[in-house]
Amino acid sequence: MTGIEPRPVPRALVGSVIDASTALLAEQSHDVVRFAMGAPGEDLIPVADLDAAFARAGTGRYDYGETEGDTKLRREILRLTEEQGRRTSDERILVTTGGMQGLDLAFKLSVDAGDLVIVEAPTYTNGNATALSYGAEVIAAPVDADGMIVEMLPELVERAGRPPAAIYTIPNFQNPSGVTLSRARRELLLELAERWGAVIIDDDPYGQLRFSGEDVPGLGDIAPDHPLVFQVRTFSKTVAPGLRTGWIDVEPRLRALAVNAKQAMDTCTSVPVQRAVADYLESGAQRAHLERLRPIYRERKEAMQAALARHLGDRVEFTDPDGGFFLWATLRGEYAGIDTEQMFAEAVRRGVAYIPGPAFTVDGSMRDAFRLCFATSSPARIEEGVSRLAGTLEAQLEPAR
Amino acid sequence: MTGIEPRPVPRALVGSVIDASTALLAEQSHDVVRFAMGAPGEDLIPVADLDAAFARAGTGRYDYGETEGDTKLRREILRLTEEQGRRTSDERILVTTGGMQGLDLAFKLSVDAGDLVIVEAPTYTNGNATALSYGAEVIAAPVDADGMIVEMLPELVERAGRPPAAIYTIPNFQNPSGVTLSRARRELLLELAERWGAVIIDDDPYGQLRFSGEDVPGLGDIAPDHPLVFQVRTFSKTVAPGLRTGWIDVEPRLRALAVNAKQAMDTCTSVPVQRAVADYLESGAQRAHLERLRPIYRERKEAMQAALARHLGDRVEFTDPDGGFFLWATLRGEYAGIDTEQMFAEAVRRGVAYIPGPAFTVDGSMRDAFRLCFATSSPARIEEGVSRLAGTLEAQLEPAR
Repeated sequence: MTGIEPRPVPRALVGSVIDASTALLAEQSHDVVRFAMGAPGEDLIPVADLDAAFARAGTGRYDYGETEGDTKLRREILRLTEEQGRRTSDERILVTTGGMQGLDLAFKLSVDAGDLVIVEAPTYTNGNATALSYGAEVIAAPVDADGMIVEMLPELVERAGRPPAAIYTIPNFQNPSGVTLSRARRELLLELAERWGAVIIDDDPYGQLRFSGEDVPGLGDIAPDHPLVFQVRTFSKTVAPGLRTGWIDVEPRLRALAVNAKQAMDTCTSVPVQRAVADYLESGAQRAHLERLRPIYRERKEAMQAALARHLGDRVEFTDPDGGFFLWATLRGEYAGIDTEQMFAEAVRRGVAYIPGPAFTVDGSMRDAFRLCFATSSPARIEEGVSRLAGTLEAQLEPAR
Repeated sequence: MTGIEPRPVPRALVGSVIDASTALLAEQSHDVVRFAMGAPGEDLIPVADLDAAFARAGTGRYDYGETEGDTKLRREILRLTEEQGRRTSDERILVTTGGMQGLDLAFKLSVDAGDLVIVEAPTYTNGNATALSYGAEVIAAPVDADGMIVEMLPELVERAGRPPAAIYTIPNFQNPSGVTLSRARRELLLELAERWGAVIIDDDPYGQLRFSGEDVPGLGDIAPDHPLVFQVRTFSKTVAPGLRTGWIDVEPRLRALAVNAKQAMDTCTSVPVQRAVADYLESGAQRAHLERLRPIYRERKEAMQAALARHLGDRVEFTDPDGGFFLWATLRGEYAGIDTEQMFAEAVRRGVAYIPGPAFTVDGSMRDAFRLCFATSSPARIEEGVSRLAGTLEAQLEPAR
């Protein structure tokens, strides 16, 4: 074996300092107000209906299932999509183990090592992390009140010297900012993606949770025949996150590749869970559930905004989402220099968890910002959490005084 | 945008012509004897116990769970491992969405594009496919009655001109051949892996299903402090495949990277499923279940060997596994030229499914071999299936006569 040297130990994967796992653990501590995880409140999960659905899961529920997804669940997904006035077909649908696996598939199929990927700034941590895990070079386009500033993409691409392989967007009630991509920008994004031959990874966990304003047509609805819109969907926010069930809706040739890839990722999504979700959807209970959720989430958002204004005044600026789960808050004035990542442990000690800004950036920037999830807690609990947050912020200034 | 050209459409992923999905669909057809999928028989899944376990899943069962895995399930995995007289610790365990996700993690963490990976010939299709999906250059070491011929590895590596990043083995009752890696070869494998700094991906779905012969110590037991033995485990064969629940047992530093990676793969394994598996294990029912399974699988293996000998005589040669699910059969004599992949559709038409040899090779070879799963069907049904297989083989010769 002369001349053959041991290779270095495996490369490290990218992960934020304070990630979802840290946040989840923090939220499980005693009396911590849960502003960190993007999870529906326990009171907003249809527990009894799901239990009943599990009990009706049927023959073969513990055997392997088709990689494509349970037949009845695929049928229910088609029905749901058509109810929303949208076009799709069975050969475009693949059931996934949550929306996260849909994202993993999207990046696996559209990115080779060294490829350029454009994400939003700020963006969903694990979208970015997945792109990096496939060796992408990730650059970020800033977001304003109308979503990703798509007009800036040509300049970013020109500077990078090559077209992107994929553009990753969360068009509705973006994670983490809560903003929605405007119709005009959606059209421009589709045009640019076509010009560059780039896949648009369209991640939409919150689209069904609009509580104010008017629907903006989806990317896949504006251009139903665009071959490169990779739609990633999930039941995590509209039914329950612990199920880990979602789907992708993509051009059939890409879907066939995704089926192959998923076979080597987890073979198929848990069969009893797929059966239970299918049964729950078939029962018709989801429509009433969504109608119940929307005004509750609106009330919670408004409670959070009111509490932020009351406790922090002009030392914080925050977004005004028309749906979804999240507010994005940026520190201003005398709080502008505070590092939200450094502050995290103290916040948890005082009984409130959030996710610091740098977890949502490519370069560790946005240290003076944070994401607040208003979906998990009641208005009274939100008031308590924001009050604790205000106390934590105030304490940050003390050493300097 | 002058000078910037659209990139080509996304690369194709590798997949065998007749894969698990095709086989599964075939087996769901009317009256097809199931020799293809590596699935326990429906009569060998503890359906009532699992139903009861799902009904006891507890508070928070539909919420996000820790990426590391449900606390109680991790505790039960530790207990199981210790009961087997093996060393491990909580900081080495990560619950996965089936053994397949464990493999996906193993290759994701040990392989960069262009790296060399050694697999067995024949090997498990989706192990190979996963290595390729991370850009590995895959070479294969042949298997004999004592498992992978480890003595050949130095020559293979010398020829490749560089050490492997990973060596993928299924040491017990190998998929697809049924053979078991001998103790001496395990020791040599550990020594070579250490010399090369290569990760050993130790995939052991069947180890608990030994029905004859004597246990061979596991790679992780021979060298408990070897930092690069990546142990992939699953409940698919010992409880039920449709659950999609398994775990990895690896050195803590590697486990921390795996937790990060899994967060961007599916966030966490389905929580109600993890709770149900934990409850099932805690009930103590699994020990009796395994004791029930072993003699049944032995009986089924012997039924299959007897039927093959009776119907095919010396026109087929097959392995003699001491456990697990599979026989590997190779055509001989006047059947030696038959292509098992070409024959597949006709076999299904005649009511029997299997997986053709080329699905288990890197280069599409072994066309005159196939994998037979004896675990799914009763002895009477096995007799019927082998009889149909014999009819199919005989019919292949007709055009030539």
